[in-house]
Amino acid sequence: MNKLLSVARGDCPADIVIKNAKIANVYTKEYELNDVAIYDDKIAGVGKNYDGKIIFNAEGAVLIPGMIDGHIHIEDTMLTPPAFAHAVAKLGTSAVMADPHEISNALGISGLEYMYKSGLNLPIDIFWGAPSCVPASKFETPFEELDMLDIKKMFDKNLAQHLGEVMNYPALISGDPDIWGKITAAGNVPLTGHAPEVTGKNLNAYLISGISSDHECNTLEEAREKLRRGMWIMIREGASFPNLKILLPLIFENELNAARCMIVSDDITARYLLETGHMDAKMRIMLREGLNPFTALRMVTLSPAEYFRLWDRGGIAPGKLADFSILDSDEIDESFKIKHVWKNGKAIVLDEDVFTKNINEHLAPAMRTIIKNIPTSEQIKIKFDEHKNNLINVIGVTEGTVLTKTLKISPTLDKNNYVVADSSRDVSKIVVLERHRDTGNFGKGFVSGLGIMRGAIGSSVAHDAHNFVVAGADDESIITALKCLSEMGGGLVISDGNKIIRSFALPIGGLMSYLDVDNVAVELTKMELSAEGLGIKIKHPFMVLSFLCLSVIPELRITDQGYININNGGIQNIFVQ
Amino acid sequence: MNKLLSVARGDCPADIVIKNAKIANVYTKEYELNDVAIYDDKIAGVGKNYDGKIIFNAEGAVLIPGMIDGHIHIEDTMLTPPAFAHAVAKLGTSAVMADPHEISNALGISGLEYMYKSGLNLPIDIFWGAPSCVPASKFETPFEELDMLDIKKMFDKNLAQHLGEVMNYPALISGDPDIWGKITAAGNVPLTGHAPEVTGKNLNAYLISGISSDHECNTLEEAREKLRRGMWIMIREGASFPNLKILLPLIFENELNAARCMIVSDDITARYLLETGHMDAKMRIMLREGLNPFTALRMVTLSPAEYFRLWDRGGIAPGKLADFSILDSDEIDESFKIKHVWKNGKAIVLDEDVFTKNINEHLAPAMRTIIKNIPTSEQIKIKFDEHKNNLINVIGVTEGTVLTKTLKISPTLDKNNYVVADSSRDVSKIVVLERHRDTGNFGKGFVSGLGIMRGAIGSSVAHDAHNFVVAGADDESIITALKCLSEMGGGLVISDGNKIIRSFALPIGGLMSYLDVDNVAVELTKMELSAEGLGIKIKHPFMVLSFLCLSVIPELRITDQGYININNGGIQNIFVQ
Repeated sequence: MNKLLSVARGDCPADIVIKNAKIANVYTKEYELNDVAIYDDKIAGVGKNYDGKIIFNAEGAVLIPGMIDGHIHIEDTMLTPPAFAHAVAKLGTSAVMADPHEISNALGISGLEYMYKSGLNLPIDIFWGAPSCVPASKFETPFEELDMLDIKKMFDKNLAQHLGEVMNYPALISGDPDIWGKITAAGNVPLTGHAPEVTGKNLNAYLISGISSDHECNTLEEAREKLRRGMWIMIREGASFPNLKILLPLIFENELNAARCMIVSDDITARYLLETGHMDAKMRIMLREGLNPFTALRMVTLSPAEYFRLWDRGGIAPGKLADFSILDSDEIDESFKIKHVWKNGKAIVLDEDVFTKNINEHLAPAMRTIIKNIPTSEQIKIKFDEHKNNLINVIGVTEGTVLTKTLKISPTLDKNNYVVADSSRDVSKIVVLERHRDTGNFGKGFVSGLGIMRGAIGSSVAHDAHNFVVAGADDESIITALKCLSEMGGGLVISDGNKIIRSFALPIGGLMSYLDVDNVAVELTKMELSAEGLGIKIKHPFMVLSFLCLSVIPELRITDQGYININNGGIQNIFVQ
Repeated sequence: MNKLLSVARGDCPADIVIKNAKIANVYTKEYELNDVAIYDDKIAGVGKNYDGKIIFNAEGAVLIPGMIDGHIHIEDTMLTPPAFAHAVAKLGTSAVMADPHEISNALGISGLEYMYKSGLNLPIDIFWGAPSCVPASKFETPFEELDMLDIKKMFDKNLAQHLGEVMNYPALISGDPDIWGKITAAGNVPLTGHAPEVTGKNLNAYLISGISSDHECNTLEEAREKLRRGMWIMIREGASFPNLKILLPLIFENELNAARCMIVSDDITARYLLETGHMDAKMRIMLREGLNPFTALRMVTLSPAEYFRLWDRGGIAPGKLADFSILDSDEIDESFKIKHVWKNGKAIVLDEDVFTKNINEHLAPAMRTIIKNIPTSEQIKIKFDEHKNNLINVIGVTEGTVLTKTLKISPTLDKNNYVVADSSRDVSKIVVLERHRDTGNFGKGFVSGLGIMRGAIGSSVAHDAHNFVVAGADDESIITALKCLSEMGGGLVISDGNKIIRSFALPIGGLMSYLDVDNVAVELTKMELSAEGLGIKIKHPFMVLSFLCLSVIPELRITDQGYININNGGIQNIFVQ
């Protein structure tokens, strides 16, 4: 500290001085033509006339603070923490708030431990949330449940810095002691929320818990109500669920909202990272939309730092961590592109050796169970029930929103009076098979909006319990996909009849690959192209598919327990009652 | 919690429902015509159709969150914590951040304990800072020093929630281990600052400590630099040092600055409280200056709550403390006046019995020492030193700023070649006598700008060591005043020759009275009128006098050790070198 102080005073030379930078000051919304002196991992001072052992001439390019993603599930990129860190560090991301509830559902505590250990000593800082809802609700079947003692242990061991998204809002609102125990166990840390379409008195009740943020606003009015009630809004710009343009008017109508909003990813893919980007991509969108550059930048730097109480970062200022990037331009504009990156005062080197070392340092537990109890074609058939209403419930998917609708349609029947998928009406059958304990339990139903014309698409990534989910145009393709998922020990699959068109193994808990971002993106792209071959036109089809199982998002979902409508008491019948 | 949740859901009636309120929403900068349901000490919900045991009809009047003063020294009101709380609660203040460094200088740990105990169970919440600089610098002589272990003890015992203003910036910047030990002892709490005119590399060095706020900005440019360097600005609107109008352009030029600025009192008098007000007065000034009402309100509610990490307050929202007021109007405008106040969900009752009970519950230790070593007239004479430059240094006071200047003037000499006060040139003699250990040590010098035409004005309130300070037109009046201060055991005095014109005893450490705000204001007014009788035209003369001893504010000060210029190595000679 004494040495840092001497450097700040100008009595000792800095390790590095970035000269002639156009500093983007997120505190005051202005450029500062100034120098930045760095000692060890910290910024010693901002000002002229600092001596340094190394001088880096920024030549008037813009210098920005390291960007922070306030909410992401790393597992959903299918990348390990090292691979993820390597992918985003060069895009200017210096820290992410990660909720590891995917791995927790799939591998329990041992999965959490893997994420934590493999997340150390990387070119970004990963702050973990303690997963509050494993399972997301009682209508999902994970490998094991995390209880309030598990949560407490995570905080006691300092593995977690915030409470991960509290998704089971019906349980919380009703006063369920398990979820309230987790809130209590978390104590005085930021409690992050997930409350899609929760409004009015239910929202008031949800907030009694002290939960202070939400990333599930799908409309402006929903976000406005949550802001009014004192919540911070995480504006989600995910791969499949891009809310940024919808919610940006919040900032245009009241710039002070930028002090209580941040931009987050939630769920993105490796392909998205390569083709679109990470926080840099969110900046480009905001700049294209005409937001003040500093206000935009605040919402990916200072605002998340403040919300998560990370007092050591968020801006370029003395005493803060030396986490920053230099842009490939002398203005913050739509061309927003990261050229140079420093983390903890070190210029970032991302060569292959470093990656390989990081990825190999910690190996993950494999998928716990080899599934033998695959249902037969016969078992997944759905007999038309003449006694019921002549309509069936179908999960209605709309591209661009995580919310689904309950469609009520007249069924297509085969000659044996079974309800069948009907690609001419874009109705696929969907099956979710429990995969953690090989119980053979499965749920079945129908989904519309995926556009499957033939074959089936399947995945062991199926929020949040991550059982096997397969949607297809015929039963044989579905069974083929399920068998393949089992044989791979988890992954993605495209089948057609009794043939596997393409598959991609995800050996870490059925969620993640050991490949780097380029190779995962290549594999994912191939899988997505194969999906197009089945007629699927929706973007990120595997991500969309995976969210059909998330019981805590309205309206209709499917798990191994069957159709679920969380706002309507849980399990639903296929036939309209 | 279960009950609160039930009320929030609407399943149980609230204790109170405030109906038809025009809620000032500091989160979203808008009025909300809505109802507020309260259960116990919390807000259960904001919304229509809540049932309550008591219904309060606000009839469309504005409802605002309880206001928070981010920095005040309660001792300087000369009121005990209960008397202070009673005075400000009815003005809409619900919490203050108090730095008890005055009492710590005067009475040490026992004084701190008195403040803490007498600050409990009042109609406002008092959050204490651990006084970081007792003494303010080594150029002051307090009753006892507080070291880093004392600071640590305060945090360990949960007596303090933040570190009080770190005033000894030269020591901090130079790496002095005592002050750095206190920073370390405080740990992860808000570290509040005091860095007048500290700029450039010195400011960088100051910030390495993690200190994150400052209330000593006297110019816009100084405040802008501190904001740029990541500090929060406490805009001070004290009785003698009103900076609000000077610094308000910070908000006009960038409204987002309101998220990192708050309005604070620092030092106000009982008379000011009665005649001008507390946080309500600061609101009136901002509204008169044309600031957006919600932005203004944010800086006395949400912004200080966020800076001090008081997540349970700052706005009207579910789960927050039910601390709020109703205005005497249906708009937030210049007429800003508090009509009804609730604290912790209870309508505030401030009758005489409650006051008397609170004030008597805890009695303070008296002044530690009865001073016998009063200097003689002969001792306080200042012999002209022919060998020196023919100029003397004089403390130059300018009304409205806490900063002083070093005036260099030719001395007025008497027939015996002594330098004497000269009221025709507004030059008074000033003497500071150590009063805690009766050492007899005193400093002497001259001050200009008080306008003393005759007699002397004296006080045992003399920042921060609170020795006796007397300024006067002649030596006899000065000695008379010192004797009176000693006999009273501390207080305020006006003397003329060998006569006491008026005095006001401050039995609690020579700083505070047991009277209520009305009576203290009456006594202070009488004292100030008597001061006017001596020719003094400056407002709040006792407050101005008291700050002439504060060694950590530039430029020239005086303590029992003599003239002090903190930026020039400390002790200065009377004669210009």
